[in-house]
Amino acid sequence: MGELINRKILLIKRPEKEPDATHFKMVEAPVPDLKDEEILIQSLYLSVDPGMREMMKDQKSYTPPFQLNEVLTGRSIGRVIQSKNLNFVPGDIVYERLGWQDYSISDGKHTEKIDPNIAPISTYLGVLGVPGLCAYFGLVEIGKPQSGETVVVSGAAGAVGMIAGQIAKLLGCRVVGIAGSDHKNQYLINELGFDVAINYKTTTDIRADLQEACPNGVDVYFDNVGGDITDVVLNLINYHARIVLCGQISQYNLENPEVGPRNLNLLIKNSAMMKGFVVYDYADKNEEAISELACWIRTGQLKYKENMIKGLENAPQAFANLFQSKSFGKQLIKVSEYHEE
Amino acid sequence: MGELINRKILLIKRPEKEPDATHFKMVEAPVPDLKDEEILIQSLYLSVDPGMREMMKDQKSYTPPFQLNEVLTGRSIGRVIQSKNLNFVPGDIVYERLGWQDYSISDGKHTEKIDPNIAPISTYLGVLGVPGLCAYFGLVEIGKPQSGETVVVSGAAGAVGMIAGQIAKLLGCRVVGIAGSDHKNQYLINELGFDVAINYKTTTDIRADLQEACPNGVDVYFDNVGGDITDVVLNLINYHARIVLCGQISQYNLENPEVGPRNLNLLIKNSAMMKGFVVYDYADKNEEAISELACWIRTGQLKYKENMIKGLENAPQAFANLFQSKSFGKQLIKVSEYHEE
Repeated sequence: MGELINRKILLIKRPEKEPDATHFKMVEAPVPDLKDEEILIQSLYLSVDPGMREMMKDQKSYTPPFQLNEVLTGRSIGRVIQSKNLNFVPGDIVYERLGWQDYSISDGKHTEKIDPNIAPISTYLGVLGVPGLCAYFGLVEIGKPQSGETVVVSGAAGAVGMIAGQIAKLLGCRVVGIAGSDHKNQYLINELGFDVAINYKTTTDIRADLQEACPNGVDVYFDNVGGDITDVVLNLINYHARIVLCGQISQYNLENPEVGPRNLNLLIKNSAMMKGFVVYDYADKNEEAISELACWIRTGQLKYKENMIKGLENAPQAFANLFQSKSFGKQLIKVSEYHEE
Repeated sequence: MGELINRKILLIKRPEKEPDATHFKMVEAPVPDLKDEEILIQSLYLSVDPGMREMMKDQKSYTPPFQLNEVLTGRSIGRVIQSKNLNFVPGDIVYERLGWQDYSISDGKHTEKIDPNIAPISTYLGVLGVPGLCAYFGLVEIGKPQSGETVVVSGAAGAVGMIAGQIAKLLGCRVVGIAGSDHKNQYLINELGFDVAINYKTTTDIRADLQEACPNGVDVYFDNVGGDITDVVLNLINYHARIVLCGQISQYNLENPEVGPRNLNLLIKNSAMMKGFVVYDYADKNEEAISELACWIRTGQLKYKENMIKGLENAPQAFANLFQSKSFGKQLIKVSEYHEE
């Protein structure tokens, strides 16, 4: 395989605040020969996730941190182009945490084959992948919204928020989204059926806006953002409210944790429950969830939005965009063409 | 009844920070005659609760705030001394939210008769009353500790904390208490069987102490206190930890909420659950809980401690003591003698 040159995106410096081009570097190296049991996978799509920001910190978490001067890894879809493993043949489309690079070598142990005939293969990184499952499990298993209840979603125009809001609508709820631009909010209302969408960047009084949007208070808060937006929502929760902690994107870029009011007493006064989760907690229900999500997509009840950027070299910028409200829907990088599309 | 003079404790000023004598006033007034259906109750024991501090604020909560220049009310045990209500006769011992006064007139609708032969009547304000039920429901219904897990209790020498810690021991857990004096901590360890007790006032490094006390991390945190103690504990929680929010006494006296680090991401990383509650949430299970608590007391497996102060006039000071680590066990005021004791 000496003729194949592999481009890789390395993490060369841990971001202290916002990530930018200086934290990453692209290098080239020849692809080594395969050993027994190995497969060579060509990257087709890379998922660009806010959660990767947490893995750039040198800290204990549910996933080990990225190492400096190593290739970044993330959820990806690829094509097997060479195989010394009996379970895979060239042409197989697979899902795995691949490197942010053109070609990855894998032992196949964590490589899942994907049937490209069921849905566009990129959706396995979005609505049928981790973001869709986060929205589904967070809402259904933790938020447990009842028909007629009010659900507030922060980060509503992100990959998870859009799906969480739509599922809440499917369950018969009043749904209020919070996002960072009027353009996104129009989409949430007109295309996805949100009842209200609040632009947190331009509002002069987010509390008044939320209060008006939630005349019966907040029963479920699906939080992707954290920070002062969460403070405002907590002040409007109802008795027995459920707060789903899916992400805290407002905090990921901070060198030291931001401070905010100590307001846990609001949970006591309202007998409210708050729960964090990671998608793997519900892995035994993945199949059921994917089947339900796929069904809603087929019937047109659930829409998804992909923000596809072409070129491995653009992955660092796409990642930085996540933290500047520039991302809209599921952020993906197309590394190579999937010709069969 | 013109000959009976009633002493009453009024709230005359809302405390902005620590409550003290200037916020209360004792006045005297004759007891009016009973109307039909009414009963006259002589106060025997008054419960002095940290939660009353929250009701001194003019804010929306699960119980309406105290009104200025009105008599304070709280959970109490009394004796019926006159009755125009067929359901009660003089001599009945009753539980009700009575005024902080010598005599209260009630319509009997929320008056519960107590059998003084089952347990000392004062325990219906402590281990068999709301504090005991808070400890029981918080731990059993929310914390759900498994044998072998580590349970941390803040405010461990308070009425609720002592019982919560002992129940956790009965369930087979390692129990670590946090309290404000060595004297209390010796009691927690030597009398109540806590494994470790940390003095948060004298420690130079509470995080190191807690880490040493919880070598396997924290599975359940029963929080009566909030504030920076909670921050420290949250940094040590395990995967799937449960945080029981029972009280936030460190915050009640603050004019404006204290600020602290935004650390909800710790709940995400550990898939942890945090839940506030009020004891009435579980009212349908009261009987079962009281029966179990009473059984543990009879068998000597559960001990309780009452801090009994004599004299209605001392109630404001007893209340102020709660916030200065001067209280130890269940704080009660004996207003009149219960002669049959």
